[in-house]
Parts: sequence; structure tokens; C-alpha cells
Amino acid sequence: MSDHHLLEPGAGRTASSTDDAAVLRALLDVEAAWVRVQRTLGLVDDGMVQAVEEVCRTTPFDAASVAGRSEQGGSPVLPLLADLRAAVAQRSPAAAQAVHRGLTSQDVLDSALMLLARRSLNGLRGSLRSAGDALAGLADTHRGTLAVGRTLGQSALPTTFGLKAAGWLGAVDDVLAELDAVDRALPVQCGGAVGTLAAVEALAPGRALHAADLLAGDLGLAAAGRPWHTDRGPVTRLGDALVRAADTLGKIASDVVLLSRPELGELAEPTSDGRGASSTLPQKHNPVLSVLVRSVALEAPYLGAQLHTAAALAADERADGAWHAEWPALLRLLGRVPAAAAQLAEVLAGLQVDATAMRGHVDAAGPALLGERLAAVVGGWPAVRTPLIEALRSGASTAQVRELLRAAVPADDLSDDRLDDLLDPATYLGASDALVDRAITRHRALRQQPVPGAAAQDGA
Amino acid sequence: MSDHHLLEPGAGRTASSTDDAAVLRALLDVEAAWVRVQRTLGLVDDGMVQAVEEVCRTTPFDAASVAGRSEQGGSPVLPLLADLRAAVAQRSPAAAQAVHRGLTSQDVLDSALMLLARRSLNGLRGSLRSAGDALAGLADTHRGTLAVGRTLGQSALPTTFGLKAAGWLGAVDDVLAELDAVDRALPVQCGGAVGTLAAVEALAPGRALHAADLLAGDLGLAAAGRPWHTDRGPVTRLGDALVRAADTLGKIASDVVLLSRPELGELAEPTSDGRGASSTLPQKHNPVLSVLVRSVALEAPYLGAQLHTAAALAADERADGAWHAEWPALLRLLGRVPAAAAQLAEVLAGLQVDATAMRGHVDAAGPALLGERLAAVVGGWPAVRTPLIEALRSGASTAQVRELLRAAVPADDLSDDRLDDLLDPATYLGASDALVDRAITRHRALRQQPVPGAAAQDGA
Amino acid sequence: MSDHHLLEPGAGRTASSTDDAAVLRALLDVEAAWVRVQRTLGLVDDGMVQAVEEVCRTTPFDAASVAGRSEQGGSPVLPLLADLRAAVAQRSPAAAQAVHRGLTSQDVLDSALMLLARRSLNGLRGSLRSAGDALAGLADTHRGTLAVGRTLGQSALPTTFGLKAAGWLGAVDDVLAELDAVDRALPVQCGGAVGTLAAVEALAPGRALHAADLLAGDLGLAAAGRPWHTDRGPVTRLGDALVRAADTLGKIASDVVLLSRPELGELAEPTSDGRGASSTLPQKHNPVLSVLVRSVALEAPYLGAQLHTAAALAADERADGAWHAEWPALLRLLGRVPAAAAQLAEVLAGLQVDATAMRGHVDAAGPALLGERLAAVVGGWPAVRTPLIEALRSGASTAQVRELLRAAVPADDLSDDRLDDLLDPATYLGASDALVDRAITRHRALRQQPVPGAAAQDGA
Amino acid sequence: MSDHHLLEPGAGRTASSTDDAAVLRALLDVEAAWVRVQRTLGLVDDGMVQAVEEVCRTTPFDAASVAGRSEQGGSPVLPLLADLRAAVAQRSPAAAQAVHRGLTSQDVLDSALMLLARRSLNGLRGSLRSAGDALAGLADTHRGTLAVGRTLGQSALPTTFGLKAAGWLGAVDDVLAELDAVDRALPVQCGGAVGTLAAVEALAPGRALHAADLLAGDLGLAAAGRPWHTDRGPVTRLGDALVRAADTLGKIASDVVLLSRPELGELAEPTSDGRGASSTLPQKHNPVLSVLVRSVALEAPYLGAQLHTAAALAADERADGAWHAEWPALLRLLGRVPAAAAQLAEVLAGLQVDATAMRGHVDAAGPALLGERLAAVVGGWPAVRTPLIEALRSGASTAQVRELLRAAVPADDLSDDRLDDLLDPATYLGASDALVDRAITRHRALRQQPVPGAAAQDGA
Repeated sequence: MSDHHLLEPGAGRTASSTDDAAVLRALLDVEAAWVRVQRTLGLVDDGMVQAVEEVCRTTPFDAASVAGRSEQGGSPVLPLLADLRAAVAQRSPAAAQAVHRGLTSQDVLDSALMLLARRSLNGLRGSLRSAGDALAGLADTHRGTLAVGRTLGQSALPTTFGLKAAGWLGAVDDVLAELDAVDRALPVQCGGAVGTLAAVEALAPGRALHAADLLAGDLGLAAAGRPWHTDRGPVTRLGDALVRAADTLGKIASDVVLLSRPELGELAEPTSDGRGASSTLPQKHNPVLSVLVRSVALEAPYLGAQLHTAAALAADERADGAWHAEWPALLRLLGRVPAAAAQLAEVLAGLQVDATAMRGHVDAAGPALLGERLAAVVGGWPAVRTPLIEALRSGASTAQVRELLRAAVPADDLSDDRLDDLLDPATYLGASDALVDRAITRHRALRQQPVPGAAAQDGA
Repeated sequence: MSDHHLLEPGAGRTASSTDDAAVLRALLDVEAAWVRVQRTLGLVDDGMVQAVEEVCRTTPFDAASVAGRSEQGGSPVLPLLADLRAAVAQRSPAAAQAVHRGLTSQDVLDSALMLLARRSLNGLRGSLRSAGDALAGLADTHRGTLAVGRTLGQSALPTTFGLKAAGWLGAVDDVLAELDAVDRALPVQCGGAVGTLAAVEALAPGRALHAADLLAGDLGLAAAGRPWHTDRGPVTRLGDALVRAADTLGKIASDVVLLSRPELGELAEPTSDGRGASSTLPQKHNPVLSVLVRSVALEAPYLGAQLHTAAALAADERADGAWHAEWPALLRLLGRVPAAAAQLAEVLAGLQVDATAMRGHVDAAGPALLGERLAAVVGGWPAVRTPLIEALRSGASTAQVRELLRAAVPADDLSDDRLDDLLDPATYLGASDALVDRAITRHRALRQQPVPGAAAQDGA
Repeated sequence: MSDHHLLEPGAGRTASSTDDAAVLRALLDVEAAWVRVQRTLGLVDDGMVQAVEEVCRTTPFDAASVAGRSEQGGSPVLPLLADLRAAVAQRSPAAAQAVHRGLTSQDVLDSALMLLARRSLNGLRGSLRSAGDALAGLADTHRGTLAVGRTLGQSALPTTFGLKAAGWLGAVDDVLAELDAVDRALPVQCGGAVGTLAAVEALAPGRALHAADLLAGDLGLAAAGRPWHTDRGPVTRLGDALVRAADTLGKIASDVVLLSRPELGELAEPTSDGRGASSTLPQKHNPVLSVLVRSVALEAPYLGAQLHTAAALAADERADGAWHAEWPALLRLLGRVPAAAAQLAEVLAGLQVDATAMRGHVDAAGPALLGERLAAVVGGWPAVRTPLIEALRSGASTAQVRELLRAAVPADDLSDDRLDDLLDPATYLGASDALVDRAITRHRALRQQPVPGAAAQDGA
Repeated sequence: MSDHHLLEPGAGRTASSTDDAAVLRALLDVEAAWVRVQRTLGLVDDGMVQAVEEVCRTTPFDAASVAGRSEQGGSPVLPLLADLRAAVAQRSPAAAQAVHRGLTSQDVLDSALMLLARRSLNGLRGSLRSAGDALAGLADTHRGTLAVGRTLGQSALPTTFGLKAAGWLGAVDDVLAELDAVDRALPVQCGGAVGTLAAVEALAPGRALHAADLLAGDLGLAAAGRPWHTDRGPVTRLGDALVRAADTLGKIASDVVLLSRPELGELAEPTSDGRGASSTLPQKHNPVLSVLVRSVALEAPYLGAQLHTAAALAADERADGAWHAEWPALLRLLGRVPAAAAQLAEVLAGLQVDATAMRGHVDAAGPALLGERLAAVVGGWPAVRTPLIEALRSGASTAQVRELLRAAVPADDLSDDRLDDLLDPATYLGASDALVDRAITRHRALRQQPVPGAAAQDGA
């Protein structure tokens, strides 16, 4: 229901961006902006704007009290508005009358959620950029670090840890690019009770749609072009991008947890005082951050889907339950995914890579890891194919396989040097180096672009 | 991440049963119980038990501080245990050493969640019993209140509002029976680090499984028979029952919202001061409680499914992320569903039924509502079937249909009285009265049973 | 599992684009394209290409047999490849050797799924364009058709049915724009067993990445830039867009079902012979297409979320179960959503709009529908506010409210004409007309753009 | 939309129990049973029953044609009924009239789905019993096979593979017990168009509820006590139990896939000709059955949740889309979960256990695996605690730790023998043996009970 920091370890990293205080603040930001829009339209004067702004800035609104009264109208906007108007009326009764007029509660709440999304995305994107930087470093450093490529859990072909890191990086940079676009498109909501803007039009005839755009401009949100009270594409697009971010974090974290198993021992989370400890096992070093990231990745798809279900059921001009079902799902995504990104960024920045262990697994896999190559090579000598595959299946050593091939293929066709080369996993890495280059180059280019929303972040 | 009372209207109804303070309390309850178990086993003395109990009862543990340190070990148990041991050590160093020994953090956390479930289920079952009582009253009162039965949104056959209420009641009583069984089966968790109870066995050779049963007994939980660290049936069974409760609440709330539409106007939520108001529309009376119940019903299936995904991925002897993914989903179900039940119980206790409106829709539907019956009756006179159906489709009046039938069927075969009877919707209600009786009788029987868990509730 | 046409009414509309025959065809298309790529790289000659193409075109591969053998390797690629190679070998043993070499089964399967997506999106976009055309017509025709705007199921403010249609249209056109972008970005998969392209590099040193781009070009897919075997963004982006399409279809269908209820009677699905009939109720006219669309909209979010869960668990260089979990979800989205779009397009093309019923509800709502406006107007005469709201709440008539206002406000401040105007819902429609214009203008602009993928569609 | 055998490897194992032919058969079974019920009620004679039964038994109804016409009425019942009546009419026009009379399409479809569930559960329970037998054998055989117990992916404490198998067994037997109860409770649906049984009551006054019970008896289903057209508890209870079965299968399969990784190498799937092969890697032995089981376990929670969403939205007396949304989800669960169970039963029956590898990991973990025990033992000598933990963390050998302890603790307090014992992982297995006994004993008891539904299965 609330207040579950205890059972959401790490929530504290980002809780302040989505807690009740932040929601209250965003709601007030929208109400204040709307009074400024009215000034631009010539409907209120500077003094009235000042009165509202000062109240919004200085009044300690009581979130618990607002929450307690929110059931009556089905949203916190009504009780907050009552408190806000009462406080403003003490300075300027006229300003109190201007507050919120023309809007509907969904205008304020949807726009406020977009402001919260803006703030949350800023944090998320910052963590993803850090993660990307760490990954670019890992990809470059380990472009020659031989490792086992695994499919369905089994050893398949040689690869490099650099390429694995480059693959993670590519996914992170895709997510970053998508989140940048989503951030730029976060729309204002401004439609009045049923999306006709009737009350705004009554206040400012012929300028209702312009007023909506002014509100967008004041809040730094995108103009929506139309009310979207029951067209929830803006919400599901935001949600889907957050889930996709969680997917990517979860995939990387899953690999880290797996490769940190002692029998693999290829990776380890950075150690810090007490991190990863157990209640009873003094020697343990759990990959606890990655484990927590995984738990978020397991939750996120459900939150995103909840937004879609709500979208499909957005009846009439305002939904009869589906709208309310969005709030907890969206807030959780806005809180949980950035926290997980911060956790994973920390993991990646200090990730311990054991190149020796990786090489050890390549060697342990033996020539079977080159089965694809060897099978292709012996295509011209079909008689050796079956014995070769038998040898690989039964775990023959490199020396044994070399001998088998040497006996079957004339040296004229396959020199000793070439044969040694064929049995060296370091020479069967395909385009891995070029793929590492591509990923790093792209990341650098992305990082040199101006960061959308950074200014807004500074001002926030 | 938390603390979303503002955007979960009505959460305050039950928040105290699942907030951080409640979680902390439940964790301490388990730790204290385990010291008592050790006394029964002869491992600690009364003074040590007292020391621990007093600390648990009187120390104001700082939930925020515990939460802040919970990321290190991936759960709140470690930091809380550190605080608890430090506090106990001031009274009795020996007692401090006995705290938690033999257990693993999952033993404490899983058992604590079952205690929270117990408390939450008590509240939920209370609300459902109230809802059932209200429904039994409605079913009885309105067993003769004619209403349109609707399928795929269209008028189909006559029914009674009493039968509709009886149908709701049947579902509520099914849920209650299931929740009673789930409540009785809430199991203790006690397995030690990997489910062997090795440390307990070391403390009390040959009595480890007995110790687990003692812990169950002390906490009022069911003996589990075995550790279930990565067999999450107990969690998904609890979750599924909660989701099923939410389904039932949602179905009823959906019907209420629908039948409260002004064009139907058959039902209305009880009015209370300010309830259902709009931010700008002074005349509105929104069915806001039912709308909020619907929003919970739209969320619950996702929470239940998250528990199943976690169960399917419960690897090894403790899961590497899937366990952590359970916590927010389970806590939300434990908080949200009882709040929705309380909301719906309030709706049903004061539900306004407009029997006149219901009858009006029956009359407006006209003889078409008896199409099934009439088509069956004219089976013996096939020539009239097509004109009859045409008449019904085109909205013919009762008088017109009567005339058509009278002309086609000889009075010897169908007397005037019988014909009038056939055209009276009140005589085509099938077994509705018997079904109402069944539902009420069953509900009364259920209500006369002793309430499982009520004693525990009193003591809680 | 399969073969559920009976319980997926309307599936036949699009089943052929995703059934086993279509999957088989797409897999063969990829294998044939790869042989052509090898020709471009100088690795095979025209005769070998011809041999493969002819076999792919003329051989009646047995889908059931392939399916029966697919469990062995966990995918249909292996058994199909065996059949394909055997058939090709009869024409050209060398060509048989060239088939598939360098690729891994996931390259073929992922690429084939993108081809299926292409074909499915073509159908879906066609239906959405038709739906949009119908909506643009409805929006224009009914821009003056007064209707009740409803929030939380209750009457709120006047609107027009034209604006409602324009709102639906805006959502449909957003979805279309997104699907166009998704279609253009459908990527080829080409990475070899572990994403290094090692075997391709062995065949064509230095040209492995070029080969991947050639395959993209041959298939009309986008170049991916890198293998994405365990970076499932391309799949979830496709899935999310399909779910968003389903959301939009579901929202419209929900409104249609609701407004088709006899007590509302504002809309009706087009009638056709037997459509919407009941097994026993001869007079019924169920909005069956919209009901079926809703059922797809209720399913789609789960399918999309399943893709995300799979993405988060895409371990190693090929996932150990998560990849396989994508297939049924993606295929269902590719089949179900286009079928639902075709159904809804049919509904919208023949939608029956009862403007009289709409106006009737506006009149029945009475002056309460103008409560927002009236409350604003009487702001200057506070004494009348409370009586006014009481009057609106208690269902006073327009005449009564007029009288009340006339008595309270001097004619100098509010002329009789202005008062009449204030009580006319047709003059409180805000920017509805401008919003209708915007939606239609945008739709026309979208329709004049060349349709991406249309050429490919023709060739398909 | 269907027909996805190709991309659901292994679907063929159970497809016949849920394909269109099976659905058609179940629908006909219900219609035929209803005619027999009418005979019991004295409404039809033996000849009419025979006519219907013969037609149902001998007529090759065309599923594709029925499917093609199912969109018209939103379900296959109408077109099938038309075909059935036409065929019966050729033998007995009176019998044709009796077919289906009194029922509604949902009565037939819901009851038919319960029949399909019965058949599917029979197969599922058979596979689970086999799996349980295999697990009981593994638990017994390996009760002394030392293995590493792992938490969060890291080595924690010693356990035995026998206890792991016993844990799996406990979960399987829980699922079996639940499925037995679910199977016994599968209810008939019989309520007529709106749940009043009006048409049945018209046919057999005062005996409508009795008729429903007769139908249950004829079909071997449970009496429902009331119609449940929009109370979907029976469907979600069935669905939840199937998902829970999938969870358990998925947990075991996840462990098998994990422990089959070459770096762990503790388990391997049974080999069979070609099973687990790769398209390009001749040496690979993928745990393909377990991978496929995992994919089903990842899908199942979404299918179960879809049933819950449908239940929450079951409006009126028949839902306007939510009912239709159940069908594909339920059919997929009925098809996919038994197929996965059959796959896992095959895995477990031939599971290859490498006790040497398990022991190797215990030895490699070294004395750190006994950290909990050693830390407890040195409680009385606090000075050694820190050096001990340092030693365990840094990977000290058993000999080194022994030396450290020997130096710190007097032999009078801790004899050499006792010290050796403390360092032996085989003596720190807690209650593992007793837990193995419990699991096996319980399984044997379950297996000696008569199998519910077995007789029905034979007759099916």
C-alpha cells in the first residue's frame, strides 16, 4: 500500500522522486503554472500569480491529511485544491478563485505525473549513462579476453568478455535513446472535464487550445495537440520504455549473478563494507545488488501490462476505475527502475572481471568449443567427420583432436601451422572486435550529444 | 517506491496492517518467538526470554534506519538483527547470542510475512462477512424485484435484483470459505540457511523438526512439514486467494458502477458528505468507492502473477532475485485487497436500489424479454414463429404480440389467461427464488460457524 | 497449444498469416535469402541458388512432421533444415552444403519472425487505415451531434459525438504512426552461434558484418548493426506497439459496447445476416464484433508482458527458456491484433449512430450538464450559488433553473438572451470543433503519405 | 492465432486433448447429456436420445466450418448446434427440437471446458505421479550424496542431493493433492440465458435445479449449486492450480538447467537420439526438455492472470468480452502444462546425477561451507572469531582452518576427533535425512490412495 522501504532494499536511492511529498509538489507546480498561463491570457494580474506562487512555495501542505481526504473524490486533487484555495484566499480572494478554474482534476494529475516522470527519467538516464561509460570501458579493456560463449546454458563457441560487455552496452544505449525520445514527448494534459476545454474557452474565447500549449510551455512538457484523458498512449509509451529499461538491467544483472557463481567465478560485484553479507554465513559474498536488480526486472513487466489493461478499459471521457489503476503502477515504475539502474551502475563501475577464470573455462571446454569450425573444415574429407564429432562429444583433448585431423587430412591441404591455428580459440572470434568498436564508437557519439532535459533537471 | 497514500485513495483504511512499522513488528515477533522455542528446548532460561521480549516490546527501533541498511544484505533482517542484538546485549549478553541462532533470514522474513497475512486476512474476512450480510439482506428484500437480465450488454430475460444479489453473495461466501482455509494453513518457515536445519540440529540434536513445529505453535501458524524456501506454493496459494477476493469485489463493483449510470439508474452508492464529488462539477455523484474497488481489481491479477513468476524461478536453496520479487507484490495484495473489501462493504451496506427504475427497464424491453419463452410456446404452431420473431425484433408492444399470438393459436390450446401469463415477465423467473433461498441459507450457516482466527485476532 | 479456431471467433480473418504454413514459409525464405547472400559474396553460383530456390518454392514440406521433430532440438529449424538439405541434395549436393552454413538456428528463426511481423503489420495497418477513414467520416458528420460527456460513468458536460470519434481517430493515427516506424525498423538477425559471426567470417573474411547487411537487404528487413540474440529490444518494441494497437481497439470497442446497451442506445454495430444472434433469444442483437475485440484487448497486455519477462531473463549468448517463451506470445499478438483490427474496422465502417438518442440523454441530464458553466457564471452573485447547486443536484428543469437565475441576477448584468444561451448545451462545447478539424486534417495528411511497406506487401 | 505446433516444441504430446476436435467433442458430449437428462425428466423418449447420441457419435462435424461461422454469434455453440439439429432432424425431428432446449450457449461451453479440463488434468496428474515416483527414487538413492546448498547463487552450507530431490517431491505432491481436489470440484454449468433456469423450469416445473444436478451427474462433473456465468471462481481456481503446477515444473527445470551447466556438471538430462542437438554445434548436449519446460513456466502466470482479469470484469449476467477472453488462456493452460509435465517426467525418469561432481564442489568450497557451524563453535573463544572469518573469506584450506582452531581452543574443550568431525561437511546435514524420509513416506501414502478420476479417465 505504501511505505514499503523495508521490503524494497535500495528504494531509498530514489524514493524522494516519487514519494507523497514529490507528488504533492508536482500537483502544486501544475496549479501554479496554470495561474501563470491565465496571466499570459490577461485573466489574472501579477499580484495574484505571486500570491499563488508564494503559497505553493511556503505552505507546508499536509500530505497525510490530503491523502486521508482523497477517497471522497477518488483523487488527491480535490482536497489539495481546497487547502490551496483556502491558503491563497488569505492573501488574495481573487487569486483563490482563479486557482484551477477551467481545469479538471485529471488535467492536474496527469500533468503532474508527467512532471514526476521527467524527474525520474533524469535520474534513470544519468545512471544509464554511467552504466554505459563503465561498459564501454569494459568492452575496450576486455576485447581480447577470451571467454566461453554459452547457449541454452551450454558451452558453444569462443567469444570475448569485451563483446559480451559491448552487447550489454548496445542494449543500454538503445534504451537511453528511447528514453530521451520519451522524455521529450512527455505531454501536458489540458482538456477540461470532458476534453472539450469548454471552461477554458469560456474564460478565453478562441484561445483554449493556445492556453493548453501555454501550460505545456510553462511546465516544460510537450504540447499534446489534444486531450488524452481516455487515450492513454502517452502513459503506456512511458511505461513500456521504463519496462524495457528494466529488461536490459535485468538481463545484465542475470548474467552477473550467473557468472558470479563460485563454480563459474568469472565476475564479482564490487565489495564494499558489509555488502552482500549473510545473517549467518560469515564467509558469504552475495551479488546482492544484481539480485535486487533482478527482482525489479521481474516486477516491471507486470506494472507495464497493468498500464495497458487500464488503457484498453479507458471508457467514456474519463475511465471508471482504469484511470485510478494506472497510478500505483506508474509510480512504482518511476521509483523502482531508476533505483535498479543506480544499483547496476554501481555494480558495473566496480565489476571484478577474472580473465583467468574465463580462459580456464575456454580451456576446459577444449576443442569441442571449435566444433563448428572443425566440422566445416573437414567438409572436404567426409570420412573424418564422424570420428571427429565422436571425439568432440567424448571430451577429447586438443592434442587428440589434432592427431586425428593430422592423420586424416594431408599436410598439403592443411599445413601444421594452419592446423594449430584452427585449434586455437583465439583465432575463431569472427567479427567480435569490429562489433566492440561499433558499440564503443556509438556510445561516444551518444555521449557527445547534448543531454535532453539536462537544463530542466538543473532547474528542477 | 512507497508512501503512495496520495495516489491510492482509501489506502489509509488498512495501511497500518502492512506498513513498515507492521513489518518491523512481525519480524520482531518471530525473533522473540524463537527465543521462547529455545526455552522450551532447554537452551535458554526465563531471564533471557524476558530480556528479548522486553526489548522487542519497548525499544523504538528505527524503521527508516533499518530500511536504509537493508540493501547491504538484501533484506531488512540483518540490520534489524544487529539493532536487536545490540539492545538485548545491554540487558543480557547471553540472550543476545541466543537471538536468531539457528535460523536464517528467510525463516524470519517468510514467517513474518505469514503473520502479516494473518492480520490482513482477519480484516479482509471481517469486511467480506459484512458485505455478505448486506447481500443476504438485499437478496431477501429484492427477491421479487423484477429486473432485466443482461448478456453481452443486451437485455436478455427477466430476472430479479434479489437473484443478482444472491449471485454476488455466493461468490463472496466462496471467497470467505477459501480465505478461512488459507488462513488456517499459513505455514511457519523454519529451515536454516539451506533447508537442512543444520544449525538447529546442532543446538538441539534430534529435535530440529520439533523445534520448527514449536515455532509454528508459538506464532499460531501451521506446521509446514518441511522448509519451503524455494517451494513457494504457500505464497502463491495465499496470493491467488487474495486475487480471487479482488476478482469478486471487482465484479460486484463493476456491476454497481454500470447500474449507477444515469441512463440505467438502478443502483446508487450511499451518499455521504462530499463522497463522489467532482473538482468542478457541483452536481455530480460519482460511484467513487466502486470505482476505486475496480482499480484494485485491475491491479490484483498482476500482483498474483508476479508471485507465480517468482515461484517458477525459485532456484537453488534460496532464489537469486525471485524471492525478493515476492515482497512488494505480496504486501500490496495484503494491503490493497482488504481496503477494497472495506470500501465495497460500505457500498453494499448502504446501497440504494431503485426498484422502479428496474421495473421500467423490464417494461421498456417489452415482450422481447420473453422471446425465449414465446418461441418455445409457439413451437407447436410453426407458422407463427417467423412473424413473432420479426415482431419482437422490431420492438412490438405486448399488446401487439398478444394479438399476433391470439390470432395464430386457438384458445383451446392456449387460453386467454394463459396467454396473459405468458406475457408477464414476473412469471418467467425460473428457479430464481429457490436460488435466493439457497444463497441466504448457506450464508447463515457460514456465519454461525466459529470464525477461524478470531481468537488470534483478538490477541493480535 | 494450437488449433483453437473454434474458441477464437474471427481468428480465421488472419490465421493464414501466422499459422504453421506461414512460419514454415518464412523460415524457408530466410534460408533461401542466405544462399543468395552467399552468391553475392562469391561463395556459391547461380545454379546452387536456383536449386535452393526451386526446392523452397516447390517442395511440399510437411509442417506436422517438422513440428513433431522440433522438440529434439528445441526449435523447428533443425528438422526443417534436415528436410531442406535432403531435398536440395537431390538437385545439387554442393548447394545442400551451402544451405544455412554460417548461421545459427536463432538467426533463421528470429529473422523469420520479423518477416511474419512484416506481413502481419501490413494487414493490421490496412485495417487501421480503414478504421481511421471511417472515424474521420464520423467525426466530420457528427461534429454537431450533441452528446453527453461522461466521467466515472456519470454525466458531466456536453460534448459531440464528432469529438468522441475524433478522439478515437487521434489514438488510431498515433498507433498507425508508431506501427509504421516499427515496421521500418524490423531487424534482421545474423550473428552465428554466439553472436561473433565466426563462421561467416571464416567463409568471407572481413565481410561478416557486410554479409549480415546483405541478408537484411535481401529480406527487406532493417540492418541491425549487431546481433541481438539476448538483447530482445526489437521483440518487445514490436510487441508493445501491437499491445498499444490492441489497447486502442479495446477502448473504442468498450465505448461501442457500452453505448449499444439498450438503455443508452446511442450506437449499434452494423447488422448482417445472423451476426450477433443468440442461441436461444431470437430478438437479440449483440455487439458481437466489439465484444470479441474487447476480449483480444484483455489478452494482449499479458502477451506483451510475457515478451518483457523473456527479455529480462535472456541469459548468456542464447537464453535457456526465455527465448522459447517469446514464440507463442509473439505469434498470438501477430495473429490476434490484426484480426481484432479487421473486426473493429468493419464495425466502424457501418456504425449506426442514433443522434436522437444522444440528444435525448443531453436533455434528460438537463441543466445539471451545465453545472460547471453556471457555477462559474454566478461567481459574482455568491448568494445564488448554494441554491443553484441544490437545484442542479435535485434534478431541477431548465425552466426552474432559469427562473432561479433570473431572480438572482439583474438583467443588466445578464440579459435574457445571454441567459438562454447559458442554458443551451450546444453553446458549451469549447474547442470541440477545432479539435475535430485537427484530427481530420492530421488523418488526411497521414493518408497522403506513401505507405511504408506497401510495395513489400504487394510482393508478399 | 492457432496452429502453432511448429513454435511450441513438444505440443504434440498433448495437443489432442485441447485441439478443435476435442473442443467439438466436448460440446457434443454436453448436448447429448442434456438430452439424456430430459429423458430422466420424462421429456423425451429413448428413441430421441438414441437419435442424438448416434448423430453425435457418427457424424463428422466440420470443425473448420463451425469455426468459420463462430464469429457471427461470438461462440462456436450456435453454428455447431445448427449442424447438430439438422443432422438429428433427419432421424427424428422431435429429437432435433429437444436438443439444447432450456440451455444457453454458455451452459454448453462452460460445461464442455470443464470436461476438457477433466481430460487434461488426468494426463497432467499421470505425469506428475510419474515425476513424483522418479523423485522419490532419487531422494532415497541420494540421501547420502553430499552437495553444496546454494543461496543467492553462492555456496552456503552442505546439503544432499537427496534432500533437494525430496524438496522437489514435496512440491510435486502438494500440486498433485491440489489438482485432485480441483478435479473433483470441476462444476457443471447450467443456468439458462440469465441464470434463472427459466426455460428449464418451464419444461420441468419445480425440477430445474434438479435437472442441473442430473446434468452434472451424467457428465461426471460436480453439482455447482448455482449458475456461475459471471462468478468465475471455478475457472480461476482451475487456472491457478495449473499455474502452480507450472511453477513447480519450472522450479525443478530451472535447477536442472542450472546444474547441467558444464561448469557445474552435477546433472544431465537423459540422452536420446538427437535430443538436445544444435543446428551447427555437433558436440552440444542441450538440456532441451528442461528449457522447454521453463518456457511454459514463464508463460503460465500470464495465462492464469488473464483468467483473473476476466473474472473481475464479468459484468451483468454474461460478460461483454471478459468471458471470451478466458477461452484461449484456459485452453493454453490445459494444453501447455500437461505437455511440460510429460517433458519433465521424462527428464526425471532418466536424470543423470554426477555425485562425484557434487562432492567436488563441496570440497572446492572448503571449510567456508561450514562457516556457520564453526562460527557457532568458537562462540566461547571470541578471540578466534575474527581470524577464523578472515581465513574462511580468503579461501583457507581445511588444514589451515584446523590448525587455526587447534591453536586457539584447548583440546580439553574440543578434542581432536571432535575437531575433525566439525570440519567434515557430512556431519553437518541437520535433519536432511528425516526430511527425505518424510517426503518419501508421504509420497507412498498418496500413491496408495485410489486415484480420483481414474475411472472417468478410463471411460473417456
